[in-house]
Amino acid sequence: MTTKNTPFSKQQLEKIIESHPTPFHIYDEKAMRENARRFIKAFSWNKGFKEYYAIKAAPNPYLMKILREEGFGIDCSSETELELAKRVGMSGDEIMLTSNDTPLSEFKMAMDLGAIINLDDISHIEYLEKNLGLPETICMRYNPGDLKQGNLIIGHPEEAKYGFTHEQMIEGYQMLKEKGVKHFGVHTMVASNELDPDYFVETAEILFKLIIEVKEKTGINIEFANLGGGIGIPYRPGEKAVDLEYVSAGIEKLYNEMIVANGLAPLKIYFESGRMITGPYGYLVTKVRHIKNTFKKFAGLDASMSNLMRPALYGAYHHITIAGKENSPETVLYDVTGSLCENNDKFAIDRLLPEMHPDDIVIIHDTGAHGHSMGFNYNGKIRSAELLLRENGEVVQIRRPETIEDLFATLDFNGLSDFDV
Amino acid sequence: MTTKNTPFSKQQLEKIIESHPTPFHIYDEKAMRENARRFIKAFSWNKGFKEYYAIKAAPNPYLMKILREEGFGIDCSSETELELAKRVGMSGDEIMLTSNDTPLSEFKMAMDLGAIINLDDISHIEYLEKNLGLPETICMRYNPGDLKQGNLIIGHPEEAKYGFTHEQMIEGYQMLKEKGVKHFGVHTMVASNELDPDYFVETAEILFKLIIEVKEKTGINIEFANLGGGIGIPYRPGEKAVDLEYVSAGIEKLYNEMIVANGLAPLKIYFESGRMITGPYGYLVTKVRHIKNTFKKFAGLDASMSNLMRPALYGAYHHITIAGKENSPETVLYDVTGSLCENNDKFAIDRLLPEMHPDDIVIIHDTGAHGHSMGFNYNGKIRSAELLLRENGEVVQIRRPETIEDLFATLDFNGLSDFDV
Repeated sequence: MTTKNTPFSKQQLEKIIESHPTPFHIYDEKAMRENARRFIKAFSWNKGFKEYYAIKAAPNPYLMKILREEGFGIDCSSETELELAKRVGMSGDEIMLTSNDTPLSEFKMAMDLGAIINLDDISHIEYLEKNLGLPETICMRYNPGDLKQGNLIIGHPEEAKYGFTHEQMIEGYQMLKEKGVKHFGVHTMVASNELDPDYFVETAEILFKLIIEVKEKTGINIEFANLGGGIGIPYRPGEKAVDLEYVSAGIEKLYNEMIVANGLAPLKIYFESGRMITGPYGYLVTKVRHIKNTFKKFAGLDASMSNLMRPALYGAYHHITIAGKENSPETVLYDVTGSLCENNDKFAIDRLLPEMHPDDIVIIHDTGAHGHSMGFNYNGKIRSAELLLRENGEVVQIRRPETIEDLFATLDFNGLSDFDV
Repeated sequence: MTTKNTPFSKQQLEKIIESHPTPFHIYDEKAMRENARRFIKAFSWNKGFKEYYAIKAAPNPYLMKILREEGFGIDCSSETELELAKRVGMSGDEIMLTSNDTPLSEFKMAMDLGAIINLDDISHIEYLEKNLGLPETICMRYNPGDLKQGNLIIGHPEEAKYGFTHEQMIEGYQMLKEKGVKHFGVHTMVASNELDPDYFVETAEILFKLIIEVKEKTGINIEFANLGGGIGIPYRPGEKAVDLEYVSAGIEKLYNEMIVANGLAPLKIYFESGRMITGPYGYLVTKVRHIKNTFKKFAGLDASMSNLMRPALYGAYHHITIAGKENSPETVLYDVTGSLCENNDKFAIDRLLPEMHPDDIVIIHDTGAHGHSMGFNYNGKIRSAELLLRENGEVVQIRRPETIEDLFATLDFNGLSDFDV
């Protein structure tokens, strides 16, 4: 019986639920901050190290304000996310736009904010130049193709829609230099939710090699290397978190051997992690609504895949505990379901859990990234509130739950009576 | 080269796009009405036949107003959908609540509207009785278990979270009768997007058998049989639509042999189809934003999986045509992608299509069901407008596109400045 701890006792949750009905997502500020500090400390050898939080993981300005205070930048992939960065008060090289199939309006917004633009395709150089002019600093996304094995979630790099080929990278830097761009970065990301720490060291090696080659072929000194995100988290009890110190030491060694030794230092190391920054520090808190016995035993929750899509979309595992039954024997085999009219609206299939009853408080773990943010309104379901457990123990609401009116905001019910059928 | 027709010429689309920028979903009223009439006509032998449109497929009150005028009821699975029914002016037995893991508030709303309640679980009989009292009419959802093979999308019935077992059905009718319920229905749905017409005839046979058995064992005359939805549509060119006349004739034959012959007529036949009602009559209209050449050729659209999730969620096929190039040779192999930072944001993988250029108008077919309604805001993406091509050729907007403000509606940006970090 392996389990996972939560920062919440049953009594605490009952108290929170008095003012915030389930389901809700709740984030643990203290743990989030400690993790952020550990990340930055691990890379303290690198002057200019920066983590750009992939805001898509949890696009909440309150969380971003905290992470910014810890020294993080923001990684955006849309106008909405750039607007959110702006409203948090961020600008300039605090913001990186890592987007693909990018519309002009998005490039413009990024340039207005002074954000670092990370181009996804060689054709975007001309597109940007023609329509908006080129900024002084540009980054390009490298797709190493079969140089690098992708992992399961992101697939083979050659199949991925992202980035420039090797040849295009060299050509791209050459073009940008000729067009007067002054500062250069390089980016890659070929994995998602990867737990093998060597993966990230290898990724650094691929980028460092390219940086050396770019210097040789174009004379350009690349100033930062964005290793992307992809750092996984241990969703299953017993899995091991990526050892950041190990990753950092591996990268530092290569940095000395490749970057320093070739006179290419200083090179700033960037990441754009989302999952590992907030993922383990968010919880979906929900209640058992009904227990059903047919061919199987079903625990029907008041949350559904509109609160958490990963199990339905990726077959992903999320650990489940029952408040107050953390140490109870796991004796009953359940499918843990939501109420969507979709058979894959299940948080767990054939999961051994302590016996459950209606109104039991269920904690779904590791929902702090790609949890609330992936929710939809299919079946007219409401996306939940987001709460924050502050370091002083206070609980604050950082996003209110949706209402039916929110779901109807784009509909003109007044016009309906004049609509002849 | 097999293709699919659209009701839109390139010129027409260009004109629509002048006032409604892409991407948008557009529905074809005329075709939708013709299909609705064909469905009703096919079952005209059955007095009381009714199709309850599964509103989750396209929860738009304008479409529902049209379908209601054609004689359809509405199938709801949430409070939001019940509220939508109410605002369209529907009530009583025009509404069926087919929900699972149902909250009390939803049962209450359905009862206030006089809707037919279709119970998903035997425990809900007591739950309803205790909390709200039982209505005069009740339907129950039957899960035939291994009596029936499920299809790929819905999975094996024994694995499905839906419905009562055979034993529970008999027990349920007995209980309800003793508790004073007067009118009874039966429901099942064990497939989704099924193209084999015999499937629906077999489903009727299973329900008719049960109706005979219920009469024998409880004396109850079941008054309606809801065969559920699940009628598929030919997403791929060359696939054959379900022959409704064939299905109807097959069911009529069984009706005479089983229902009439056993003195159980009249029995009203209901369906709760969503997909076949609006699916083929909706189109996602989008433009090529960028063409990208790396290891593959990518056509990047201004739509993304926030407009249509089915390819990413189910690997579903949606036919794609290019306005004005309907008859051009399909010479180029493309991945047709959206702009989400998600590698599975692809509308098609390795699809042979006519050569494309930026600003080409791309039509994604059969998006009239589970298209717009499944969209999410992941990556801060905006859900699009819905338009309607009226029978007179006019185009009206029946849902406005979202704005960034809509996405921020649940966030309190004013509170952000007082939020100490």
